[in-house]
Amino acid sequence: MIVDRTDDELRYALPCKWGLVEDDVLPAWVAESDYAWAPPIAAALADAVARGLTGYPDFEVGGPLGEAYAGFARRQFGHEVDPGDVVPTADVTAGVRLALDVLSEPGPVVMPLPGYPPQLSIAEITGRQRVDLVVDPDAERAEIDLDALDRLFADGARTLLLTQPHNPWGRVFTRAELEGIRDVVRRHGARVVSDEIHAPLVLEGSPPHVSYLSLDGTADHAVAVVAASKAFNTQGLKCAQIVAPDPATRERIRAVPMARNDSWSPLGVVASVAAYTECDDWLDALRARLSAQRDLLVDLLAEHLSEARMRPLEATYLAWLDLRSYGHDDPAAVALERGRVRLSPGHDYHPGLPGHVRLNIATSPERLTEIVRRISKALA
Amino acid sequence: MIVDRTDDELRYALPCKWGLVEDDVLPAWVAESDYAWAPPIAAALADAVARGLTGYPDFEVGGPLGEAYAGFARRQFGHEVDPGDVVPTADVTAGVRLALDVLSEPGPVVMPLPGYPPQLSIAEITGRQRVDLVVDPDAERAEIDLDALDRLFADGARTLLLTQPHNPWGRVFTRAELEGIRDVVRRHGARVVSDEIHAPLVLEGSPPHVSYLSLDGTADHAVAVVAASKAFNTQGLKCAQIVAPDPATRERIRAVPMARNDSWSPLGVVASVAAYTECDDWLDALRARLSAQRDLLVDLLAEHLSEARMRPLEATYLAWLDLRSYGHDDPAAVALERGRVRLSPGHDYHPGLPGHVRLNIATSPERLTEIVRRISKALA
Repeated sequence: MIVDRTDDELRYALPCKWGLVEDDVLPAWVAESDYAWAPPIAAALADAVARGLTGYPDFEVGGPLGEAYAGFARRQFGHEVDPGDVVPTADVTAGVRLALDVLSEPGPVVMPLPGYPPQLSIAEITGRQRVDLVVDPDAERAEIDLDALDRLFADGARTLLLTQPHNPWGRVFTRAELEGIRDVVRRHGARVVSDEIHAPLVLEGSPPHVSYLSLDGTADHAVAVVAASKAFNTQGLKCAQIVAPDPATRERIRAVPMARNDSWSPLGVVASVAAYTECDDWLDALRARLSAQRDLLVDLLAEHLSEARMRPLEATYLAWLDLRSYGHDDPAAVALERGRVRLSPGHDYHPGLPGHVRLNIATSPERLTEIVRRISKALA
Repeated sequence: MIVDRTDDELRYALPCKWGLVEDDVLPAWVAESDYAWAPPIAAALADAVARGLTGYPDFEVGGPLGEAYAGFARRQFGHEVDPGDVVPTADVTAGVRLALDVLSEPGPVVMPLPGYPPQLSIAEITGRQRVDLVVDPDAERAEIDLDALDRLFADGARTLLLTQPHNPWGRVFTRAELEGIRDVVRRHGARVVSDEIHAPLVLEGSPPHVSYLSLDGTADHAVAVVAASKAFNTQGLKCAQIVAPDPATRERIRAVPMARNDSWSPLGVVASVAAYTECDDWLDALRARLSAQRDLLVDLLAEHLSEARMRPLEATYLAWLDLRSYGHDDPAAVALERGRVRLSPGHDYHPGLPGHVRLNIATSPERLTEIVRRISKALA
């Protein structure tokens, strides 16, 4: 059910991940998968283009997209979302920016590190200071340190940028963890922007995804930003959603000048509706494939990179590898130069952190095997 | 060569213009055309979707998109653009926002009125004050008053937001006019952001489009924001271009954090490249059609709305009608209620201005005839 695209197909289909590397390089960097679209998405897009879907979106809040997401959230996460709470936006980072701009007080934004590089600059873009909540690279488990979070809020921070499941930690937050975060946030009257783009990608053996919004007492201080684009590989089609269950909050988002939030594509809406309504089986198959890739990676590391350290990969297709034992400050650079594998350097996610990489496993078993073998040779 | 879509086709293809009105309403508001895509664009998009073009764009400056735009600018406007000067962005308003954010000093932004409504709030969104340069509705010709512009700069404004050809003035600026503007801008060391999205839509009998950047002594203080989307009806595909011939300026735009400028779509790039390279004949046919529609509108107004006043429509498919003689503050509301025609109310373009509407003529002669007849009956 999961169709692996060929290298040639991928050089066209993924202009960034595959297009920006030389032909002899295996790309394992950008968070895109090497799989073909689910057939209902391909069919919906072909139909839309054949019928010339060309115009501005309808700027509707809720509507078919809201209905589609609400059904998906109910089936996949047991989370009841009112379709009318769903506001479209161009992509998750645009949604996070909008939420910060419109909802957050001007105080600093707490950014857990390592974190998604484009969002490391999101505080600055909105005229705010970024304050980092750093996970010790030697910690057994990557977690939000509630005491540290409490201190950052006490010192003036007003917003937590939460990513869950977390990229690149690969963690699913438990309900108890999220409740702990919520309690600290509420104590300080702060806000949460919860990037949940990886929610459909919880791997086998992991606890289920819990939307931050499904916790009691979060609607008045939080929005979630979600999208079909990561799980269903439609990054280039430009459509994400802000879930805003609090009416006053939603109204603040709806009331922004059009130029703040008008750049999503109706083709992205078409793809999202198809993904949310017709692709549950495909998503099951995807999670099975990614879980198998994760297990394969564990085996490959044991065989070829036994000094690598990886915390359990619970969600996402992005493995965070501690390669400090190999003695390279920038193992991604070494892997590219000597191994012809492109990884994401860890210091992009955690400025100043040496010896880490992020490895994208959303490819074929054959490519993943070759990737790890090449890294092993390069770092030796 | 220009194919008129049916009402049913348009209700699907244009979710905003046709989707947001009731079935008995003729839409003549949002700036989209009722014509099918040029065949090369339809073919290129069908091919891209069939091949699963799905990923993030390649973030390349110049490249095939730059080459395509440079060829188009040379053939259409006699304007030599270095392909490497062309920076992609999501849409023209996103590009204007980016230019203001990144290039302009924090001082006020001069906005000629009437002006494009989403851009009336662009100064505020970038944390700046908007100062208006108002065209007298009774003026024979809509022009930038250079003395008024000079005073606004003297009072502290730092940027002029130029739209040319102008929406909704319907004007093509002459080279002499643009040189006059340039001289005032240079005297004050100010900046220009030149929205040239309507450049391909100069109608028959009008002077040619002159890019502000084709004037000597503008590269150091100006960028142009251009797109294929208006002429070629690909608004929903999300791809515009910032033309930045000054290397230091371009470097400032390229160096922004990714989250400031990463939301264009590779499908938009595909459509733009096809439009810029394969559609000159179609564009000729479009201009011929729109010129005929403009002439038809003049005749229809003389017959059915003889008290309407319209300055010569030199470019765009958007007619600015002064209907004050009919005695309605909001003739668009009257036309909708009594005539079942949706127009854009003039006060959206010029806050506080009564009695004006913007009428979109990019439809069939039959629909345009019916539109004017309905307005006539409604206002009587």
